[in-house]
Amino acid sequence: MLNFHLKHIPFRPEKPRTEGVTMVIDKGMSIRETEDFLSTSADYVDIVKLGWGTSVLTPKLREKLAIFAAHNMPVYFGGTLFEIFYVRKQLDDYCRILEDLKIGHLEVSDGSMDMTTEEKTAVIRQLSKNFTVYSEVGSKDATKIIAPYLWVEMMQAELDAGSTKVIAEARETGTVGMFHANGGVRSDLIDEILHQIPAEKILWEAPQKSQQVWFIQLLGHNVNLGNIPPNEALPLETLRLGLRGDTFDLFLPKE
Amino acid sequence: MLNFHLKHIPFRPEKPRTEGVTMVIDKGMSIRETEDFLSTSADYVDIVKLGWGTSVLTPKLREKLAIFAAHNMPVYFGGTLFEIFYVRKQLDDYCRILEDLKIGHLEVSDGSMDMTTEEKTAVIRQLSKNFTVYSEVGSKDATKIIAPYLWVEMMQAELDAGSTKVIAEARETGTVGMFHANGGVRSDLIDEILHQIPAEKILWEAPQKSQQVWFIQLLGHNVNLGNIPPNEALPLETLRLGLRGDTFDLFLPKE
Amino acid sequence: MLNFHLKHIPFRPEKPRTEGVTMVIDKGMSIRETEDFLSTSADYVDIVKLGWGTSVLTPKLREKLAIFAAHNMPVYFGGTLFEIFYVRKQLDDYCRILEDLKIGHLEVSDGSMDMTTEEKTAVIRQLSKNFTVYSEVGSKDATKIIAPYLWVEMMQAELDAGSTKVIAEARETGTVGMFHANGGVRSDLIDEILHQIPAEKILWEAPQKSQQVWFIQLLGHNVNLGNIPPNEALPLETLRLGLRGDTFDLFLPKE
Repeated sequence: MLNFHLKHIPFRPEKPRTEGVTMVIDKGMSIRETEDFLSTSADYVDIVKLGWGTSVLTPKLREKLAIFAAHNMPVYFGGTLFEIFYVRKQLDDYCRILEDLKIGHLEVSDGSMDMTTEEKTAVIRQLSKNFTVYSEVGSKDATKIIAPYLWVEMMQAELDAGSTKVIAEARETGTVGMFHANGGVRSDLIDEILHQIPAEKILWEAPQKSQQVWFIQLLGHNVNLGNIPPNEALPLETLRLGLRGDTFDLFLPKE
Repeated sequence: MLNFHLKHIPFRPEKPRTEGVTMVIDKGMSIRETEDFLSTSADYVDIVKLGWGTSVLTPKLREKLAIFAAHNMPVYFGGTLFEIFYVRKQLDDYCRILEDLKIGHLEVSDGSMDMTTEEKTAVIRQLSKNFTVYSEVGSKDATKIIAPYLWVEMMQAELDAGSTKVIAEARETGTVGMFHANGGVRSDLIDEILHQIPAEKILWEAPQKSQQVWFIQLLGHNVNLGNIPPNEALPLETLRLGLRGDTFDLFLPKE
Repeated sequence: MLNFHLKHIPFRPEKPRTEGVTMVIDKGMSIRETEDFLSTSADYVDIVKLGWGTSVLTPKLREKLAIFAAHNMPVYFGGTLFEIFYVRKQLDDYCRILEDLKIGHLEVSDGSMDMTTEEKTAVIRQLSKNFTVYSEVGSKDATKIIAPYLWVEMMQAELDAGSTKVIAEARETGTVGMFHANGGVRSDLIDEILHQIPAEKILWEAPQKSQQVWFIQLLGHNVNLGNIPPNEALPLETLRLGLRGDTFDLFLPKE
């Protein structure tokens, strides 16, 4: 993939991969912007999320999905759209729509509504029969601080129920969930989580560059990262490979 | 317009509309970016402002205006361009240019220069004979704090003089006028204004998402909002329709 | 270049120019985005930097370079890429690559690695035989505060060694080097530099609008500015010409 031969570039597994995953959030790209994005970044992105309910309003949605499919790029709808259907008791409609659109991935979240753990795991158990399920832990509400042991319990319960990966919530802006309102990382929380859940089972939402750098330094260049803006996917790959100032000497041999 | 059938989606009037207006600010999109923007967002946008003096420098301006016209999308030049001509005593030139370019809307503002209320209303009275006039209240200067009663007096005088709508200044960044330097909203000011001026006569500049959410919560989903970046127009429409976490339960039936 | 005739517009030299230079940073635009950027901004931009190591990962790099060449737009690779090759003792490879790609400009920097002044000037002396060399002063490390007299000494030594211009570091975000972590300008430092180095020999990195305004107010509209995001190049030109609120009356005759 590299245009130039360089020594000491860390190894990246080929797609499809379960580690080193990059998930991009699309908030309404046009057909042509989608093509442009894929032309530069398809090799560096594993899956694209059509953010929250944007897919309800996107013109030519089928045409757009066909372009992603032609590039073998999996697409799924943001967890908020699941919640929008769920809270209206239209979950069956939602499943029919996904089947009709040939979307095989689905996100189960409860960031904007209340759901007991039993209810959530039951839904995951049911939906994981027909879909690859990602489930998200952590509230979008900046005032709800969830204790570390509860994060772990929820993640484990959701993986047991059938989730392929759990997503650690940070929102599009990276200011809630694992992050303080100022964007700083709750490192004690992340320590506690990693002590108990395998890293490859977690997809960390990290929209801001400083957060991406922090996770790469902590968990290595093949950490799973999500909510990456489309035009930050190639820059993130440079971070993973030590091709940017922030990770410049992370993969160089120590003298 | 919705791709999927969902219950409890609030009503949006069809275009052309006087309430629920979205005004987008363009700071120099190319021809193709203009087409891309219209392909995703034309249904959700009522009018486009070519920001400040960018239209002086935009290559192929006539071709760009023709694309907007082909989509029945009204376009006007930012108020700063009016001021640029006005302060040079070239207002007649400005009117001739607008007529030549078949631009029917015009913004009268005094954000960067001093103008008495008499002078400003006289200009509005004159120009509203030939153009649909928007006039803007509030300074771009962060150190000029205008008292609430003065905002109301100015808005009323300008509407009386012929303005179709008054625009409440916030700048491209949302840090002056109705907003504190940190982007927070001067809610006492907005209360005072709404006590006296009909909401549909006001277009609120609200470039930041938190500001858009604040206005939708206060004034409902059909509030008039402006200075929206092109790629935030579709996301704003999701806010108006309860399709994003921030307004998720605003339109759901109360239990 | 102006679409409308306006009085009191300051003079901008034609390209190619040595003063009033605008350098844009590209962090991975697609072929079509490159064409779009050039269609609106080619007249307002003097040179494009492919940021840090993005060119290692950009698909169809040769095709992209050909588009820039067809528009007579010089391109060079970010200084971090020089450092990436240098620290791996692959500088010869780097030179061969540039020659092969017909890239005539090169940036020498030491923002991410340690290099003595002797070592750096020796490299500049060698490379300036075959390339137009820009050299960058200032660390990417926010904790390294370099004293003003050292900035001056380094700049002078590098110009003497063959640099065409010296670049004053600010990073993509504008928060290090000449800037405080909050983006404010270290004005004492800039004063000291200008007392000793000719302004036209310096290219100031100023990615944020407030920084661009600050430099234009201090050094005039033909100041050399760099690290401008592609879609901010036309807006910067409006600042240079007094067509935006921030510089509205800078070039008007004083009453």
